[in-house]
Amino acid sequence: MNFIEKLKNIFSKFPTVGPRTAARFVFYLIERPKEEIDELINALNEMKEKVKTCSFCFNPFQSEGDLCEICSNPGRDKTTVCLMEKETDLIAFEKTKKYKGLYFIVGGTVSNLKKTDFQKLRTNALEERIKNHPEIQEIIIAFNPTTEGEATALYFERFLKPLGRKITKLAKGLPTGAELEYADDETLGAALEGRK
Amino acid sequence: MNFIEKLKNIFSKFPTVGPRTAARFVFYLIERPKEEIDELINALNEMKEKVKTCSFCFNPFQSEGDLCEICSNPGRDKTTVCLMEKETDLIAFEKTKKYKGLYFIVGGTVSNLKKTDFQKLRTNALEERIKNHPEIQEIIIAFNPTTEGEATALYFERFLKPLGRKITKLAKGLPTGAELEYADDETLGAALEGRK
Repeated sequence: MNFIEKLKNIFSKFPTVGPRTAARFVFYLIERPKEEIDELINALNEMKEKVKTCSFCFNPFQSEGDLCEICSNPGRDKTTVCLMEKETDLIAFEKTKKYKGLYFIVGGTVSNLKKTDFQKLRTNALEERIKNHPEIQEIIIAFNPTTEGEATALYFERFLKPLGRKITKLAKGLPTGAELEYADDETLGAALEGRK
Repeated sequence: MNFIEKLKNIFSKFPTVGPRTAARFVFYLIERPKEEIDELINALNEMKEKVKTCSFCFNPFQSEGDLCEICSNPGRDKTTVCLMEKETDLIAFEKTKKYKGLYFIVGGTVSNLKKTDFQKLRTNALEERIKNHPEIQEIIIAFNPTTEGEATALYFERFLKPLGRKITKLAKGLPTGAELEYADDETLGAALEGRK
C-alpha cells in the first residue's frame, strides 16, 4: 500500500470524514510546502509526547501537574461540577465565559437504555470523584437536548441521586433570535413549561 | 500556543474543515493509541520524501521514474488524453474501469471568464505536451457540469482548437436511476438535446 492509500485510510477514520473527503485531504497535503507538513508532524509528535488527561475532569491538557488549567485554577468554583458528553462541549461552555465551576467529561452518550452502554461511560470515576470531594454541592447535567442526550441525562440523574447532591439540568426553551412561528412543538412546549 | 491550538489551526485549513470539525479531529487524535499517531506521522514523512508529480499528467505518485503508474503503463491508449480539474476526479474516472487513455490534471477551474484566472491553470504545460506528442488524437474535456466547469471547458476548447486534435466533451443527460418527473429542466433539456 502506498502512502496515498495509507493516509486516505487514516483520514477516513476521522470523525465526519468519508473516503472522498479523505482523498481530498491527501491531495491537499501533497500540494502543501514541506515546511507545512513538518509543522503538522511536529504538532502530532508534541501531542504524542505531552498530552495528559486531567485526573479530575478528563479534559486533555499539556501543562504541569495532574490537573488541567481549569481544575487547577484557584479562581474556579469547586462546589459545582458540570457533566459534559465530550471535550468540544466543554470548549463551547468555556466560550460563554459564564460558567466558573468545574467539569467532568463522561465520554459519550447512551443511545438506547441499555445498562451496559451506560457502564462504558466514566460512571465509576464520577462516583469516586464526588465521594472524595464533599465540597461539591451541585451537579449540572449538560448533555445535548436530543434523544440520546436526554436518555443519558436520565441515567445520570438516577445514578447520582444516592450521593445526595443537588442535581440540575440546562434550561430548554427558545434559542436567542428564534421566531415563535417557526419554533418546533417540542421547543415551544419546553419554553412554555419552563416559563418564569 | 499549545499543540491543541496548533493542530486545530492546521486542520482548519484542510478542505471542507471548519474550526469546530478541526477541534473534533484533535480530540479524536488525542484518544487514539500512540501507535496510530505514529502511523499517521510515518505516512506523512513518507509522503514528504517520496511524493512526485507525474511529468506528463501532474498526478501525484510514488513509484520509480518520472511518469505515474497510468502514464507509464504500456497497456494504456496513448492517443487519448482526458482533461480533469483535480486528482479526485481522476480517481473517480479510474474507478469506472471504462477509460483506457491518459489524463492531464489542469489544476482548477475558472470561476469567471477572466483570462488571468485561466492562465493560472496548467495551460502552457498542456500545450507543450500536446505539441510534443503527435500520437494524441483526441482530447476529452471532462469538467463538472457546473457554471465554473462549463466556463473552463469553453476556455480550453478555444485554447486547444489551433492544435488540430479532435476535442470531445462528456455527455450530459439523465443520471442512472433518475426519475423523469424529478429531473431539473437543465438536465432534462440536455437529455433531450443529446438523444440518439
